[in-house]
Amino acid sequence: MGRRPSEPGTVEGETMPEGKTMRWNLPDTELPTTWFNVVPLLPEPIGPPLHPATRQPLGPDDLAPLFPMALIAQEMTTEPTVEIPGEVLDVLRLWRPTPLVRATRLEKALGTPARIYYKDESVSPAGSHKPNTAVPQAFYNKAEGVARLTTETGAGQWGSALSFACAFYGLECKVYMVRASYEQKPYRRVLMETWGGSVVPSPVDEPGHPGSLGAAISDAVRDAVGRPDSHYSLGSVLNHVLLHQTVIGQEAKAQLAMAGEERPDVVIGCCGGGSNLGGITLPFVTDPRVRLLAVEPASCPTLTAGRYEYDFGDSAGYAPMLLMYTLGHDFVPPSIHAGGLRYHGDSPIISALVRSGRMQAVAYPQSKTFEAAITWARTQGTVPAPETGHAIRAVIDEALAAKEEGAERVILFNYSGHGLLDLSAYDAYLRGQLVD
Amino acid sequence: MGRRPSEPGTVEGETMPEGKTMRWNLPDTELPTTWFNVVPLLPEPIGPPLHPATRQPLGPDDLAPLFPMALIAQEMTTEPTVEIPGEVLDVLRLWRPTPLVRATRLEKALGTPARIYYKDESVSPAGSHKPNTAVPQAFYNKAEGVARLTTETGAGQWGSALSFACAFYGLECKVYMVRASYEQKPYRRVLMETWGGSVVPSPVDEPGHPGSLGAAISDAVRDAVGRPDSHYSLGSVLNHVLLHQTVIGQEAKAQLAMAGEERPDVVIGCCGGGSNLGGITLPFVTDPRVRLLAVEPASCPTLTAGRYEYDFGDSAGYAPMLLMYTLGHDFVPPSIHAGGLRYHGDSPIISALVRSGRMQAVAYPQSKTFEAAITWARTQGTVPAPETGHAIRAVIDEALAAKEEGAERVILFNYSGHGLLDLSAYDAYLRGQLVD
Repeated sequence: MGRRPSEPGTVEGETMPEGKTMRWNLPDTELPTTWFNVVPLLPEPIGPPLHPATRQPLGPDDLAPLFPMALIAQEMTTEPTVEIPGEVLDVLRLWRPTPLVRATRLEKALGTPARIYYKDESVSPAGSHKPNTAVPQAFYNKAEGVARLTTETGAGQWGSALSFACAFYGLECKVYMVRASYEQKPYRRVLMETWGGSVVPSPVDEPGHPGSLGAAISDAVRDAVGRPDSHYSLGSVLNHVLLHQTVIGQEAKAQLAMAGEERPDVVIGCCGGGSNLGGITLPFVTDPRVRLLAVEPASCPTLTAGRYEYDFGDSAGYAPMLLMYTLGHDFVPPSIHAGGLRYHGDSPIISALVRSGRMQAVAYPQSKTFEAAITWARTQGTVPAPETGHAIRAVIDEALAAKEEGAERVILFNYSGHGLLDLSAYDAYLRGQLVD
Repeated sequence: MGRRPSEPGTVEGETMPEGKTMRWNLPDTELPTTWFNVVPLLPEPIGPPLHPATRQPLGPDDLAPLFPMALIAQEMTTEPTVEIPGEVLDVLRLWRPTPLVRATRLEKALGTPARIYYKDESVSPAGSHKPNTAVPQAFYNKAEGVARLTTETGAGQWGSALSFACAFYGLECKVYMVRASYEQKPYRRVLMETWGGSVVPSPVDEPGHPGSLGAAISDAVRDAVGRPDSHYSLGSVLNHVLLHQTVIGQEAKAQLAMAGEERPDVVIGCCGGGSNLGGITLPFVTDPRVRLLAVEPASCPTLTAGRYEYDFGDSAGYAPMLLMYTLGHDFVPPSIHAGGLRYHGDSPIISALVRSGRMQAVAYPQSKTFEAAITWARTQGTVPAPETGHAIRAVIDEALAAKEEGAERVILFNYSGHGLLDLSAYDAYLRGQLVD
């Protein structure tokens, strides 16, 4: 448990005294200059990716049709840190470091002695944490002469981020968007097009199918391997993606210290493929006093009800096989609004942490997460993404448990994205039309 | 002309050196504690508001059915500053101070020697500068025992802001939304409902009419005067609204100093009723070396083609008469996407500044403003509101003029809001379906 802070940010009694700080901004000169690699520190090793046809461990050459060599090296590295190129820092600096904010109004509404901090990743141009990896991925591809990237997207957060990054490096961007989200969220398509990306619904050859992340990955991989000018880009799951996201947790550590907190008692993130969760939790893995909590949808309960085994990363079996918790690569999750959490598998790193007991996982039905999101909007003011609503649900339950126990507790979570392009989901919830 | 800065933020030659600051965050303890009142400093006095029936100057009692006494006093004050209540600062501090950012990537794309700075008001929960006045208006109404506020909204920015503020003070909120925007922007309605507001299209008694801000004001005023528990709230035009927005320009002054700039050469804002423009420009009025520029739509050219005379604030003649530039209170602007700029009149303060020559005005057709907005999105990364696109159009033209002249120039503008809930307008532009 963190000590009670005497710095700005303290709430004395019931009311927030005037003039107290609730946000901690790092100067942009304090942006981390290295990524944090958790792989050599994991409690048990992760399995190597296997070739989908031969089921033999993959070498760098096997991945070369999909990824640039720099990213393949990062996927396999066991170095403790990886340097962030200056050209990448220059773009990240458009919105990073992101603020650390204390949710004092939510605390007060809940009547909890817990102190709730969140890292606000919604401030990026694309509205989520996703550009943290889209930018270096576009950079390394450009540096190796690639002209075009293909990718999949669920709710559209990742496709938006990659379209944004490609605009900055002069790359073409083709996005295969899960059809359920394509139809629920037309503004996401327009956002990608505003940055110059092109978007089609997936699966491309089954027009009536609601789609899944697994199927959209198949579409994007097939496109990339079929064109010599193209590579494929993945927005979650892989080691190098989680590596890029560790700027979040590194900044949060520095900002918690500014806020006078020694450490969080628990760090919480929602989990689809695991990238925002990894981004905020991995820098805390080595401190056993810090609990780590993954939050997933009850309708796609990979970590809480999946099997730990090798499975394909996509539904058609084009992508490498990964050792992970999985619901089966042919699992098609219901069309919940948190499209970014509709993935049958999970990051091998996150899976290994859950397998070893270092990280816990919990699942919620979507109505409970929208209830939490509305509470957030009416106390803290901002409208979270449905994915982020899952993290907020768990945060509220942790804060209420702290109240029940009469215990102080420092809760840190990742506010992974805003919900301004997900308002049709809020409309459904407010009209009572949302099903679990 | 400001001196060349030697502080962080300098661009040396063609490339931005690594590690240089492009954003200046004021600590939240540095939020201004007073509003800046320009009224006693105006080059020529503004005319008093007149009663719409008697055409005699209005006294405080005449305004009491609409506004709380504290706001009426602020509307009429000639004190140089007005103290901001601590309870208001506590809510503003959720997102203020807002960042000052240098648009180095746009500068580079234009090849201009100008240094372009913007104040990012899009970071508020409602996505624009509007909460700067919504919060104190809700606070003062609550303090005087009002239970319910009515208002109009154009594009939805103002209605969103008031719904947000009412949620924080436990007030009911009823929003009359200009029908053209209500139909173009369904997500704005959902956003207001997420904060607990209720929204109806206006004019309420003419279902086929596209509506106008003037007509929506009539609907909201009629509702408020008909119910003893209700007051009316206006998001622009009036003196107290511009007063509340002066936090923007005050912060910008302090942040420009942090960036090593002595002063801006020109300050630019888009203008509908004048609140975001006033917010950023008024604190610079007394420095004659700083040029002030208003940007309006060519289809609603109030400042550039209107008459300076007393006119009604609304279309039906319920609202007070104001001395201002006006196109006539029965003018119905075309349904351009920058709904927040579709007002027949203008703030009396802004009108007096233009009349006296202290402020200049320019008008653009909407296609030119979307062209500028796309350039912004693909260089700076964020998607501006269509209203903000007007300011950006003028900024680009100023920067290109500086290039033509080979002159350094410090340009400051107000990035008044994001366009994430206006993506249908971008869709129309990108598909070539947008008409001027």
